[in-house]
Amino acid sequence: MRAAVIGSGAWGTAFAKVLGDAGSQVTMWARREAVAAEIRERRGNEGSLPGVRLAESVTGTTDLAEAVAGAELIAIAVPSQTLRGNLADWAGAFPSDATVVSLMKGIELGTLKRMSEVIVETAGVAADRVVVVSGPNLAPEIAARQPTATVVACSDEGRAKQVQHALATPYFRPYTSDDVIGCELGGATKNVIALAYGMAVAIGLGDNTRASLITRGLAETARLGVALGADPLTFAGLAGLGDLVASCSSPLARNRTFGEHLGRGETLEQAQVATRQTAEGVKSCLSIRDLARANGVEMPIVEQVERVCHEGADPRVAVKLLMTREMKPE
Amino acid sequence: MRAAVIGSGAWGTAFAKVLGDAGSQVTMWARREAVAAEIRERRGNEGSLPGVRLAESVTGTTDLAEAVAGAELIAIAVPSQTLRGNLADWAGAFPSDATVVSLMKGIELGTLKRMSEVIVETAGVAADRVVVVSGPNLAPEIAARQPTATVVACSDEGRAKQVQHALATPYFRPYTSDDVIGCELGGATKNVIALAYGMAVAIGLGDNTRASLITRGLAETARLGVALGADPLTFAGLAGLGDLVASCSSPLARNRTFGEHLGRGETLEQAQVATRQTAEGVKSCLSIRDLARANGVEMPIVEQVERVCHEGADPRVAVKLLMTREMKPE
Repeated sequence: MRAAVIGSGAWGTAFAKVLGDAGSQVTMWARREAVAAEIRERRGNEGSLPGVRLAESVTGTTDLAEAVAGAELIAIAVPSQTLRGNLADWAGAFPSDATVVSLMKGIELGTLKRMSEVIVETAGVAADRVVVVSGPNLAPEIAARQPTATVVACSDEGRAKQVQHALATPYFRPYTSDDVIGCELGGATKNVIALAYGMAVAIGLGDNTRASLITRGLAETARLGVALGADPLTFAGLAGLGDLVASCSSPLARNRTFGEHLGRGETLEQAQVATRQTAEGVKSCLSIRDLARANGVEMPIVEQVERVCHEGADPRVAVKLLMTREMKPE
Repeated sequence: MRAAVIGSGAWGTAFAKVLGDAGSQVTMWARREAVAAEIRERRGNEGSLPGVRLAESVTGTTDLAEAVAGAELIAIAVPSQTLRGNLADWAGAFPSDATVVSLMKGIELGTLKRMSEVIVETAGVAADRVVVVSGPNLAPEIAARQPTATVVACSDEGRAKQVQHALATPYFRPYTSDDVIGCELGGATKNVIALAYGMAVAIGLGDNTRASLITRGLAETARLGVALGADPLTFAGLAGLGDLVASCSSPLARNRTFGEHLGRGETLEQAQVATRQTAEGVKSCLSIRDLARANGVEMPIVEQVERVCHEGADPRVAVKLLMTREMKPE
């Protein structure tokens, strides 16, 4: 298959590796020529994913039209909050029947739209052509061919199967699903829960507390999901629980690490300087909180993370508030 | 409230601590006089739970009749496979209206009964008097008053609330449930999944793989649960997901640790010598496998753990088999 990957961050690069290893001809689009050249000439991308070795069938370019020309599958992995602006420039170049794969995990600020909704609106792509891929997929481990699994969700079963087969390798097992909403909410919200988890780690809370946080976090994610039409069982699967556990467990995962900085008492600015990035959850906690409120759904962990990130609340107080709410049936 | 705790292992001791801190008069029964005396005289139990400090209202005895006399609540925390034999000796002493709390996580070999079923059968206690407590409750963290939550399940809501209030402290939050079957299966099966997780850790598999194992493990637990009449949502809660994540995450948890020994290529006997105990999951994998087969439920992780523990299978091969099953919808 002819495939394009737009974005050369860690996840985009890992995804291109899987596609290449599974037999596709892949063109990665990178913003900077040095990155495109490194992919093209050395099948590497040390800045984003140290040690990765891409298949010979993977190449790189900074020319978007060249990247997507003739592509049957276009995967997009750009920062969530830049997607709309990027698509306005790019979408005209997309082949009219290409399957568009969203690798992004966020909810757009202001509009409160999921990434697939932004793609449908902005790129003029029908919803049944948009596929979401989400699961316990830490990019460095995929680059090292550690075995894992993922969910490939689309309202059109044929598109989901197309992407499933394009990704199947001995180390990467894709499962199909029709629950696009559930997969996207699971991915976006886990970034916020992982921030809370990182705070709990920094505060010195143990494995019981952390496991409770994961469980209650998944429960509030599922509540929002059900209100928006998702299948509750999606949250017990790889794109819910699986992704959340991987992101919370790994000391290398971005949102957890960022949360640890905040938990040690650093300001948002100090944490950004220390990690040289802004974790997705820092923005998503605002849009997910707003989405929850708009739908009358209680999301106490998201509310507390938002207060720590954007209202100067003390993470110790915030986490304690979460653990001492009134008793009730589960 | 007047309460008894039968068993002086780590979990029984932690449970007595919570009861005492919440205001009950607690008598712990221990098999050995030295342990009973240590509890009675020093409010400690260094052999089972180093560093724990029990409330002044907690005492210890080796006299079962004395322990349970006048008790409104009797909590039992003995090894799963010894419960039936123990109850035959003890049950006559139980006050006729006492609530009996099961803290045990196992399925009886041979009969394939849950612990609450063994209590009902052997102690002549009506099912609506038996309460199951299960959640992310690693005993050393409870002893250190790390905040956590748990599920208190009973078919009689009044009994569940009675136990909920008897346990409520600032660091321990009990939620009520009516799903006894789900809570018991979640607890028993997590021991087996934690063995597989330990093997995966020892083999060097990363956080993606481990998160997939937790997710797939919970899915097969839920399949068995649903076949036996449990509420599938229980497995997404504290007694399912929460307990499983805590047991897999903690390097100190018994079943995970035991699985790590097996994953390093040790035999069952070598692992027993090294850890000075047999992990519950080593026995439960047999009874849970049999229970699954008897109900026509596929439990591939439990099957592979049983093969490693009891049929000499290589854990590397077993884990690889789990990660390369055929592709299908989630």
